[in-house]
Parts: sequence; structure tokens; C-alpha cells
Amino acid sequence: MSQQTRLRVRYAETDQMGVVYYANYLVWMEVGRVECVRALGLRYKDLEQSEGLFLSVVESNCRYLYPARYDQEVIVETSVSKASSRMVEFGYKISSVEPERLLAEGFTRHIWLNREWKPTSLPQKYRAALGIGR
Amino acid sequence: MSQQTRLRVRYAETDQMGVVYYANYLVWMEVGRVECVRALGLRYKDLEQSEGLFLSVVESNCRYLYPARYDQEVIVETSVSKASSRMVEFGYKISSVEPERLLAEGFTRHIWLNREWKPTSLPQKYRAALGIGR
Amino acid sequence: MSQQTRLRVRYAETDQMGVVYYANYLVWMEVGRVECVRALGLRYKDLEQSEGLFLSVVESNCRYLYPARYDQEVIVETSVSKASSRMVEFGYKISSVEPERLLAEGFTRHIWLNREWKPTSLPQKYRAALGIGR
Amino acid sequence: MSQQTRLRVRYAETDQMGVVYYANYLVWMEVGRVECVRALGLRYKDLEQSEGLFLSVVESNCRYLYPARYDQEVIVETSVSKASSRMVEFGYKISSVEPERLLAEGFTRHIWLNREWKPTSLPQKYRAALGIGR
Repeated sequence: MSQQTRLRVRYAETDQMGVVYYANYLVWMEVGRVECVRALGLRYKDLEQSEGLFLSVVESNCRYLYPARYDQEVIVETSVSKASSRMVEFGYKISSVEPERLLAEGFTRHIWLNREWKPTSLPQKYRAALGIGR
Repeated sequence: MSQQTRLRVRYAETDQMGVVYYANYLVWMEVGRVECVRALGLRYKDLEQSEGLFLSVVESNCRYLYPARYDQEVIVETSVSKASSRMVEFGYKISSVEPERLLAEGFTRHIWLNREWKPTSLPQKYRAALGIGR
Repeated sequence: MSQQTRLRVRYAETDQMGVVYYANYLVWMEVGRVECVRALGLRYKDLEQSEGLFLSVVESNCRYLYPARYDQEVIVETSVSKASSRMVEFGYKISSVEPERLLAEGFTRHIWLNREWKPTSLPQKYRAALGIGR
Repeated sequence: MSQQTRLRVRYAETDQMGVVYYANYLVWMEVGRVECVRALGLRYKDLEQSEGLFLSVVESNCRYLYPARYDQEVIVETSVSKASSRMVEFGYKISSVEPERLLAEGFTRHIWLNREWKPTSLPQKYRAALGIGR
């Protein structure tokens, strides 16, 4: 299962090479990740506020295949590639719509932290949503 | 009294016009403001953590005279232009070093908020630093 | 005539006060401005590429009334508040959807530049779209 | 040989978790990379403008060990980990000064592009600086 999020490239996201600055792909991954988690029936904001659970990034990786340009429509396709009670890995494919082309792909790895910033495990009731324990 | 802060234009701060994206001048103002407050003997981080005081922005203004370019050294000259126990206004002049040229000027206006996000007044002991009550 | 653009607050746009960082309102203004220009029948990307016309900002102003928060849906309402053949001023109202509340308002002022970065006037054929000459 | 660059964490770089947003480490890598290239006797700005050579990123990777916080002084230690006439890989170690602690490490991989955005090889005269051909 993967979740598609559309966004339009902002002027702010370009750099003087005339293409999207490389760190902004990680911002788009975050946008896709939030929508992916939402589509799975969780709401990241509620996990933070009600449960005191934070999804803390431990690794990011991005391979840049083709530059994204200003005003292009872009699709971020996000999926949970691995998940246990303690960690989640998301995979991303970032494509332009016109022309239809893969621009970048990557992953981010996360662990759950509690309010004291200690690694913790995801409460049982949320695990099924991430496909844990199946 | 004014405080000068130097910074070098980052690639990330440019846009596809080949110059610094306009919102980034507000980031530079923040960098200058922090240094200005520090030079006055306050430390913004401590005000936040120990006193629960937040300097919340209520207005920003910037006039753009000349574009800043990648790798240029830039000086942000910051001063307190107005201050009372409840509000502070900072003025900024942003210049390039080579060539020596005024790039932008502006101001930001702030009020003090407490931990409950209510407007509050700056404790007496910090006022002299901002020239209040003279 | 005003143009409404919706966006959702990104995690990247928040700061450690737990609200949207003040410079990001200018990014949202840019998003609104592009959509406003598009709704008027112009396409900013084409003006840049085909005509060599750049809308260069000369002033920005923002009054911050209420903080925007992560994951909120936000509406940027943009209109052309003044326009001549040489300059354009846009006005912005930024509101949250839930609760329905005005968060910020402001304006940006721009001049047209040609490929040589010299002030120029907007070609006749584009003026009606901006309501110039009526 | 490695190059150390110091920077201070900006408020703009934090997010609502109270730490530096994960994409900003890639911005810091870029700051370190520019200084590293400069220390090697090249100037990235000149390569772009005089030679029409662009260092285009093809992969980024970052492992996040410990969060960076607002106002901390941070050292980015950058080195060329691999280089040929067609590609360069930089390695990064990002540490806080107080306390002295490794915060993140990663790499970026780049290829040289010419003005037509085609992969090209670095002119002979610049190769020694990057240790190519030794």
C-alpha cells in the first residue's frame, strides 16, 4: 500500500541552478510521510499531542535522478517499507506529472521517542495500522 | 548602539532568479536580532528556558534595494529602535561587503509572551539592557 | 477580485515555539501570488521564460495576528491591490480554516525587470489582466 | 584532509520538536562542502560562472545520532572521500561544540554537469586540487 501526495514546486524551493534545492526533497518526503500515516488511520499530530509519541528520524537517504523545476506538479508516493514496534522505515518515489518521470527516490528511518526523548515502543493499539505483528 | 553580524550567502538561500529569495532576509534579521540581544547582555535562549519569555513577532517589514548573491559576505546591522516593557522594535540594515552596498532595510516589531502565550511585560531586571526606563 | 489558495502547514515550517516560523508567511504569500497571477490569465513561469520578465520584490510587509500551527489548513487570499505598467502590489489575508480565523495580513510590492535586470514596463497585451489602464 | 566550518543554529532551523529540522543538516553539508572546496583552492562560484561547471548532487545520506538545538555552535567537518574526473563524494561529520558530541554524519555524491546539463569531466587543471590522478 502506498499513498500519493501532490504538491506544486514553489519558487522558494528552487536555487540558482534553476532547479529544486536538494534538501527540499526531504521536506517533500515529510509531507508524503504525514499523509501516508494519516491514510493508515493515524494522525501524527495526535500521536504527538495525546500520546507524547514522536517519530524521530535516524537516517535519511535520497537518490536524485532528474531535477524538479519551478511550478511543476510533483507526486510523492510514500509507503511503509519496514515497521516494528520500535522503528518505522518509509520509502519514497518522487515523480513529476508533466512529463511523467521519476525524479528521486529514497527512504527515511525513524524510531519512536516518548516525552522524555527516550526510545519507546508504539502502543499495541496503533500497531495494526502500520502492519506490525501481522 | 547597533550590532553587526556577518554571514555568507548559502546556496540554499538563492532562488532561480540567481539571487537570495526574499523570505530569507527575515531569517537574516532573526540572526542579527539574536546577536543584538546577546550583545545587550541578554541571551534569548535563556529568556525562553529560564523565564518562559518569548519574543513574539507582530510585524515585519523589509525594503529590498539590491539583490544579495550566492557566496557574498553580508553584514546585518541590528539595533533596538523602540522598546517598552511590553514591546520591542528592531531596525535592520543589510549590506554586502564586496561591493559595499546597502541591500535591504527593515524592521520587526515584537511583544513579550509568557508560557501561556499571554502578552506580558519584561521583568524589571532585564529592562535596562534594552534601554527601557531611561 | 481575490484568489484563494489552500495549503497545509508543514512540519518543516514550524519552529521551536511550536508555531509557524515568521519568514514562512512570505513563502505562503509567494504561493498565493503565483496562483493569483495564474487566475488572472498570466502564468508567471511563462513571463519569465518567454518574455524575460521578472517580478522583483521591492517591499514586503506582514502583520502577525495569530500563530499558525502544524497540520492546520490555511487559506491565502491574494488580490492585486495596486498596479501600473511598472509596478504591482499584492495584498494578502492568511487565515486558518479550523478554527476560521485571520492569522496574518500583509502586502508585497514588485517592479518588472527585464533579462538585463533593468526596470521595464509590462507589455501592453498583459496589462488588462492586471486591470491596468481601465 | 578535512575542512572545519563553524555555524550557529538559527531559530529558523528548529522545528516544533525543539530541535533542528532534519532537512537542514543537508543545508549545513552544503555550507561545509563550499568551504571544503574553497580550502582545496577551488571556488565553487567561479567554477559555475567562468567554467560553466555545476556540481550536481546524485545522492545524499545522513545518519542522525543526536539532535542539534537552537543557539548551539556546530562544527561541520567535510572531506573529499572519493573523487574521479566525473564524480566527487564528500563525507561529513557534524558535531556540537558544547557539549562536544557527534550529532550526525553522512555523505553526498555529485557529478559534474556543463551548461547544457550534460555530465562532463572536470578540466585537468582542477583535478590535482581534489586529489584526482595521484
